Amino acid sequence: MSESAASGVIVRKYGGSSVSTAEKIRTIAGQLCERAKAGDRLVVTVSAMGDTTDELIAIAQAVTGPDVAPSAREMDGLISTGELVSSTLMAMAIHSLGQDAVSLSGQQAGIRTDSVHGSARIAEIDGARILKELQSGRIVIVAGFQGLGETGDVTTLGRGASDTTAVALAAALEAERCEIYTDVDGIYTTDPRIVPSARKLKEIGYEEMLEMAWLGAKMNPRSIELAAVYNVPVLVASTFEDVPGTLIHGGEPTMELRKAVTGIAIDKNVAKITIRGVEDRPGVAAGILKPLADSGISVDVIVQNTSDDGTTDFTFTVAEADALRSMELVKGQTDVAYREVTRGGQLAKVSVVGTGMQNGPGYASTMFTALSTAGVNIDMITTSEVGITCIVERDQVPTAANALHDAFELDKAD
Amino acid sequence: MSESAASGVIVRKYGGSSVSTAEKIRTIAGQLCERAKAGDRLVVTVSAMGDTTDELIAIAQAVTGPDVAPSAREMDGLISTGELVSSTLMAMAIHSLGQDAVSLSGQQAGIRTDSVHGSARIAEIDGARILKELQSGRIVIVAGFQGLGETGDVTTLGRGASDTTAVALAAALEAERCEIYTDVDGIYTTDPRIVPSARKLKEIGYEEMLEMAWLGAKMNPRSIELAAVYNVPVLVASTFEDVPGTLIHGGEPTMELRKAVTGIAIDKNVAKITIRGVEDRPGVAAGILKPLADSGISVDVIVQNTSDDGTTDFTFTVAEADALRSMELVKGQTDVAYREVTRGGQLAKVSVVGTGMQNGPGYASTMFTALSTAGVNIDMITTSEVGITCIVERDQVPTAANALHDAFELDKAD
Repeated sequence: MSESAASGVIVRKYGGSSVSTAEKIRTIAGQLCERAKAGDRLVVTVSAMGDTTDELIAIAQAVTGPDVAPSAREMDGLISTGELVSSTLMAMAIHSLGQDAVSLSGQQAGIRTDSVHGSARIAEIDGARILKELQSGRIVIVAGFQGLGETGDVTTLGRGASDTTAVALAAALEAERCEIYTDVDGIYTTDPRIVPSARKLKEIGYEEMLEMAWLGAKMNPRSIELAAVYNVPVLVASTFEDVPGTLIHGGEPTMELRKAVTGIAIDKNVAKITIRGVEDRPGVAAGILKPLADSGISVDVIVQNTSDDGTTDFTFTVAEADALRSMELVKGQTDVAYREVTRGGQLAKVSVVGTGMQNGPGYASTMFTALSTAGVNIDMITTSEVGITCIVERDQVPTAANALHDAFELDKAD
Repeated sequence: MSESAASGVIVRKYGGSSVSTAEKIRTIAGQLCERAKAGDRLVVTVSAMGDTTDELIAIAQAVTGPDVAPSAREMDGLISTGELVSSTLMAMAIHSLGQDAVSLSGQQAGIRTDSVHGSARIAEIDGARILKELQSGRIVIVAGFQGLGETGDVTTLGRGASDTTAVALAAALEAERCEIYTDVDGIYTTDPRIVPSARKLKEIGYEEMLEMAWLGAKMNPRSIELAAVYNVPVLVASTFEDVPGTLIHGGEPTMELRKAVTGIAIDKNVAKITIRGVEDRPGVAAGILKPLADSGISVDVIVQNTSDDGTTDFTFTVAEADALRSMELVKGQTDVAYREVTRGGQLAKVSVVGTGMQNGPGYASTMFTALSTAGVNIDMITTSEVGITCIVERDQVPTAANALHDAFELDKAD
């Protein structure tokens, strides 16, 4: 860390459920004041209160009617207000406890992004204003989830992206650590609401966490990517319970991490789009997916089957919320001819994740056998360096997750 | 109007009750699209939806606790979000009806203010962005009530100041007219909820309207001052009922305006602060009131009684909401010695307003006689060029207003 950097800076992030009431905001403000008195230089980023973002999206949909997708630029202007509200309230709460603080919008905090409304990427952070405020002895509250795009309009970074704001701030400020406070008290081997024997991990590597995050664990995957690139240690811990959390880091794995399979990731928010009768020639996949990429829609699992009449079926999955728009975009493209487009919902991803997996045989076999024995039908399969993913019916998730957690003995701490 | 100006621009403003639901926003969007198709170049400013501002203030108070005034800078950051929400929703609603539109924050609309948080004054409006958007065929929606202060922070212009935003935009853009749409359908001789025989005025001059506005009519007085200075015709009309409104203008009065008394203004939101035992020397009034002015609190009626022991009692009225803070500011000033400060609430102003009044004798006498006959006790009296004001107990307002409306025969249209 360079001499000029803000040494001793801690970035904290509080999720929407942690700041859902005035009382909770006051409690967190009290915690922050204690840390500030103990000498921490705090930069705090907050999500919108409770269900604010969903409520704003609902009223936008009510205003435009069910068949029209609201303008992405206006939607960003709308939903970015949620974090302005929570950040100003947090600053007020800290003031009322006698500690100086200031709230900054994404723009004021120097967060510059590209102009892909709804899922903008952070281009750079000019930390000058934040450092100046820290220098003045203030706790700095930054509205999460948002920045200023190239065109001078407010952008948002995508759902759950206050995590990304926090990690990006930690990287830009060369902070000691980024702490993500939430309503879960750490990263578990799988979702404990679905698998009762799920076990909290003391630590996890960036790669595995990334895979867990992409696959449904309660953290924004882009934030983990960023943390890995800038080597920012990230602590995930409970906002209101004083119990040890999980440290995500890039250091040497301890014994716990030597286990090949780290956890079972679950994502119940999956829809698939199938394009049938696609001409079978090079460039087809790119032609179909480019409009989605241009619109900032993340495509996840992709499967293409070749058939013998010169056409093929092409299937991909997206988040349920992006399904309708994805279909429209596929229908709107003119590069690739096809017979029909269909949409399937009510799906889920269940993934076995672990860095040791590519070196050991039999993980896939164990997975498929466990699912088969439990009577779970597999719709699609995809593999990566750190995991194997199956798409299954959503209502089979509990059966699948419990079967896999047992099969890989994840309830046992080695 | 200069060649370069945006000729044919109409500025419309919709109050909070007009945009309180998604359905109402859609209805207004439909009206705007019709006007745009008819050739109007529209700049529209909106208040926050319904009771949003009050709700935000309530949660701020819940966050800081009842005894702490929230930071004015943070409060501005908080409550300015209400208009960001309504303006983005209005733009989306217009889009969904097939017409192009764009929402602009106060900052994006080029509204620069001083840095008195909570009651900032507009310093200048750079209309370049708005004109560019109009040029592109868009309806421009501007978040009311807010601007960018000198220090780069969001400021708000004070309660009800979306009217001011609208008139200032009309002046800056050299608009043909400013139209204020609200839940009343015009300016009445007095509040029709209190005086059943109240009559809607077809037109009213700036001066009288200013007096009516200061004295409680449902328009922001600063907006009328601005309209008078820049000679902007202002139409006050109903959002949802298609009936003629009232035109506020500076032209030659028609017959209706020749009547000496135009209306009875009522303001039920009055508290008084009395400072007893003040040393009786020059500079006392200035010493007491300067901290209030510095904090942007409007002092209204001021009365000072001389007593014979070298001290005096000094009384002034403020809006009920400013009473507590006003007392603190008076107690905090060190220029003027005094014995005690007391606060009285539950008061109201009842005023007789009219431009012809200073030329005719007997208006004051008619007023005091009418109140006395009706059994209304007068607490304080003040007069101006266009009116006479009495401070009375709030619960005597209906009696007082009806007595005065009758005494000046305001139910008769000449």
